[in-house]
Amino acid sequence: MTATPETKHVLIVGGGFAGLGCALELARSGGRVRVTLIDRHNYHQFQPLFYQLATSQLSVNDVSFSLRRICCDKKNIDIKLAEVAKVDPQTRSVHTKEDENYQGDYLVVAAGSQANFFRIPGADANTFPLYSLTDAERLRSRILALFEDTDRDPKLAEQGSLNFVIVGAGPTGTEMAGGLADMIHTTVSAEYADLAVTAARVYIVERGGTLLAPFSQRAHEYASKVLQRDGVQLRLNSSVTEVHPGHVVLGDGSIIKTRCVIWGAGLMAAPIANTAGLPTGRGGRIQVEPDLTVAGFPGVYALGDCANIAGPDGKALPQLGSVALQSGKWAAKNILADIEGKPRRAFHYLDKGIMAMIGRNAAVAEVGENRHELNGAVAYAMWLGVHLALLTTLQVKVETFVEWIWDYFLQERGPQLLDRSDAARIDWYGDGTDDKATAAIAAATAAK
Amino acid sequence: MTATPETKHVLIVGGGFAGLGCALELARSGGRVRVTLIDRHNYHQFQPLFYQLATSQLSVNDVSFSLRRICCDKKNIDIKLAEVAKVDPQTRSVHTKEDENYQGDYLVVAAGSQANFFRIPGADANTFPLYSLTDAERLRSRILALFEDTDRDPKLAEQGSLNFVIVGAGPTGTEMAGGLADMIHTTVSAEYADLAVTAARVYIVERGGTLLAPFSQRAHEYASKVLQRDGVQLRLNSSVTEVHPGHVVLGDGSIIKTRCVIWGAGLMAAPIANTAGLPTGRGGRIQVEPDLTVAGFPGVYALGDCANIAGPDGKALPQLGSVALQSGKWAAKNILADIEGKPRRAFHYLDKGIMAMIGRNAAVAEVGENRHELNGAVAYAMWLGVHLALLTTLQVKVETFVEWIWDYFLQERGPQLLDRSDAARIDWYGDGTDDKATAAIAAATAAK
Repeated sequence: MTATPETKHVLIVGGGFAGLGCALELARSGGRVRVTLIDRHNYHQFQPLFYQLATSQLSVNDVSFSLRRICCDKKNIDIKLAEVAKVDPQTRSVHTKEDENYQGDYLVVAAGSQANFFRIPGADANTFPLYSLTDAERLRSRILALFEDTDRDPKLAEQGSLNFVIVGAGPTGTEMAGGLADMIHTTVSAEYADLAVTAARVYIVERGGTLLAPFSQRAHEYASKVLQRDGVQLRLNSSVTEVHPGHVVLGDGSIIKTRCVIWGAGLMAAPIANTAGLPTGRGGRIQVEPDLTVAGFPGVYALGDCANIAGPDGKALPQLGSVALQSGKWAAKNILADIEGKPRRAFHYLDKGIMAMIGRNAAVAEVGENRHELNGAVAYAMWLGVHLALLTTLQVKVETFVEWIWDYFLQERGPQLLDRSDAARIDWYGDGTDDKATAAIAAATAAK
Repeated sequence: MTATPETKHVLIVGGGFAGLGCALELARSGGRVRVTLIDRHNYHQFQPLFYQLATSQLSVNDVSFSLRRICCDKKNIDIKLAEVAKVDPQTRSVHTKEDENYQGDYLVVAAGSQANFFRIPGADANTFPLYSLTDAERLRSRILALFEDTDRDPKLAEQGSLNFVIVGAGPTGTEMAGGLADMIHTTVSAEYADLAVTAARVYIVERGGTLLAPFSQRAHEYASKVLQRDGVQLRLNSSVTEVHPGHVVLGDGSIIKTRCVIWGAGLMAAPIANTAGLPTGRGGRIQVEPDLTVAGFPGVYALGDCANIAGPDGKALPQLGSVALQSGKWAAKNILADIEGKPRRAFHYLDKGIMAMIGRNAAVAEVGENRHELNGAVAYAMWLGVHLALLTTLQVKVETFVEWIWDYFLQERGPQLLDRSDAARIDWYGDGTDDKATAAIAAATAAK
C-alpha cells in the first residue's frame, strides 16, 4: 500500500451481511475511500428469514432489499451488478462474467456460501436448499404445488406428496420444520377443502443426537417438545444416504417417500473462494489472519461465510449473520487504519447470543456472557427484536420495518405465490430412470 | 337444466375479475349451488396495476392475491389449480392439462385475454406484454437490467440501452409511459451514479391520432401535456411494423434502437375461447347473448375479456376490469334465476366512468352519466379510490389494503427486484442472425 494522500479504492465482492456491513462502515470515512460493491444480484438477501418466505409467512420484499436503495445516500459507494468469474488476489482485481475488470487498492472477498451436499448421491439434483432468494421462492412454489396437486388428486398422498423431509437440524432446518408444521396446521387446514391435512408429515433428519446442537441441553429439549407437539417426526442419529426424485433413503435403509427434500445440512464457501488461489480450509473457506487479511496477499481481506475466522478458542466462528456483519465492519476499520498508517487490530467477535424460532410464539435464545437461557414467548419477542436490529444496521428504511412488523403480526400469512413453475412441475408418474439423480446414485453404487 | 331440488354445480374457468366476481356472488346463495373455480395460477391477478409492478412502484403482493385466501370462508367455493386444455360446451365439462375432468350443471368461461400481436413480425418474440403477473415481473427485471448494464458500460446507450418503446397509447401504454418516465426521473436519477440518465428516452407509438382514445379531447390534451413535460416522445399516427432484438422499425421506415419494447397495443381472447367450438367474433372472443349465455349451448356462459358483450349502442363493451366484474356478478344472478325457474335478465353495464393514471399526482377521469371530466390530483385521488374499491369488491382482507396504501404513499418505490434472469440476460453484441425474430421477419418479407 502506498501512502499517498489520494482516495483509496476498496473493491468488495458480495453484498451480504459482511460485504454490505464493510461498505456501509467505509461510507462513514468521508472522502478517504471510495467503494465499489459488486454483487450478482441487485438486492441484499436476508437469509435468516428465508424459511418464512418458503412457508408463505413473509413476502419477497420482507427478506430482500435493494442494494442501490440501501446505499443511495452514500456517495462514495458505487454498486455494480455483475457476477465475478475470477479473482486475482495478487493484483486485487476481479474479472466478471460480463467481461469487465475491476481493480482496487484493497480487495474484500465476501462472496458468501452455498449448500454443501457432502457428495450424497442425488442431493444436488433433488433437494431444495435455502440459501438464496431464488431458493426460497422455488421452495415456496414446490410446497404450494404439492398441496394443490394433492387437493386435486388425493391419491398422490400415497406417493408421499404430503411428506416433507428436512435434512439437518441446525437453525435453518429446525426453523423450517416449525414453520412448515405451523403452515400445515393453520393455512392449509383452513384453505384446502379436499385435502387430508392430517396425512401431512414433516420429517427432520439429523446425523447428530439433538436439534439445534450449538444450544444448551434445555433448548434441545424445548425444541424437541415444541416440534413433536406440532407433529414433526424427529429422526435423530440418522442420515440421508440417497435422494431420489420420489424418495429418500436413510442410513438404516429405511425409505421415506417424498417430493420435497429441504436441504439444511451444511454450507461451503462460494466457489470463487476456491478458484482465487487463496489458502482455503474447512468447507473451502478462505483462511484469514486474526486481522481478517489473507497471508501473502497484501490488501486482501476475506469475510463472513466464505472465510474461516478463528474464534477465541481457536475454532472457526460459525456461519452466522452476526459474525458476517461484525467482520465486515471490523475489516472496514482495519482498512482505514492501514490507510492512516496505523496498525490493524485482531478481530474480536462480540457474541451477543444465539437464537432460533421454532414456531409461532416459540423460540429459544441464549444471550449475554453468562448464556442466559430463554424460551417460549419471551425468546420469540427477542428473536423479532434482534432481526429488526439486524435490519436497522443495514440502514433499511423505517417504512420497510413497519411493513415487516405489520406483515408479521397482522396477516395470517404472506403471499402464497406459486410463481416458479419450474419448481412446481412434478412428474408424478415418471419412474425417474433417466434422471440425473438416478445416474448419480448408480455411479456412486458402482464405485463402492 | 333439470329442476331437481339438489345442489347445482357451477364450473368456472378463470379466477380474474369475471370468474372470481361470479364465484363470490354465487357464494352468497347459501346451499343452492356449489362452485368449482379453476385457474392455472393460485392467485388472482390485478392487471390494472401491473405497470406499477413493472416500474418498481408496487410489489408482487400488491397486485396478486391468493384465490384460496379470498375464498377460504366461502364453504361452497372449491378452488382447483389446473390448466384447462379443452372445453366441451355440449357437456359443460373441461379437460385439464393435468389430465383431469370437471363437469358442471353450468359452465362459465371467463378465461381472459392475452396480447394480440397482430402478426407484426418479431413482436411475439421481442416484446414485453403486460397482461400477467409473470409478464410484469419479467418486464421489471428487463428494465432494471438495462439500467444496471448501462451503469457498468455507458457505451451501451449508443445501442439504445436507454430507449424504451411502448406500443399502443391506450390506458396500459399511457400509464406505463408515465410510470417509466417517473421512475427514470426519481429512483434511477438518484441511485445510478455512472448512468447518463438524461440519455434515457421513453417513446410511445400509437396508430391513432391521440393518447387514451376512449377519453375526451380535454383528457387527450392533458395526457399529452403531462407526458411531454416528463420527456416522453409521442409518435402518434405511427405504427411499429417490425420488432428486432435490437431495434424497431416504424411505418415511415424510421428506426429506434431499443432493447425493451413494451406491448400495449391490443388484446385477444385466451386461446381456449377459440378451441371450444363456441361462436367467436372480433379478437377471437366468444359471442354471447344479452343474458351472457352462449346461443346453442344451454347452461354455458362467457364473461369478461374473453367474451364479446354488446353494450347499449350494440358495439362490444371494452375489455375493462369493471365490465368483467359486473358481468361476473350478473351471470351469477342469471344462474340463480335459472335454477329457480325465473327468467334470465339481459346484462346492463353500469358505466361508472373511465380513468387512467399518467404519473404521480396526474390522472384523467370521466365519471358519472354526464361524463364529468376531472384531471390532475383530484382524478389521481379518485383513481386510487376506485382501485381500492375494486379490491374490496374482491374481498381482499383489510390488511392488504392498508399495506397497499402504505406502500403507495410512504415508500419512494417498491422492491427493485431483478429476479427474472431470463428476461434480464441481453446479448449486447450478438448480431441476432439466428434469432427467432429475424427468421419471422425474413419469412414475412419473403411472403410480400
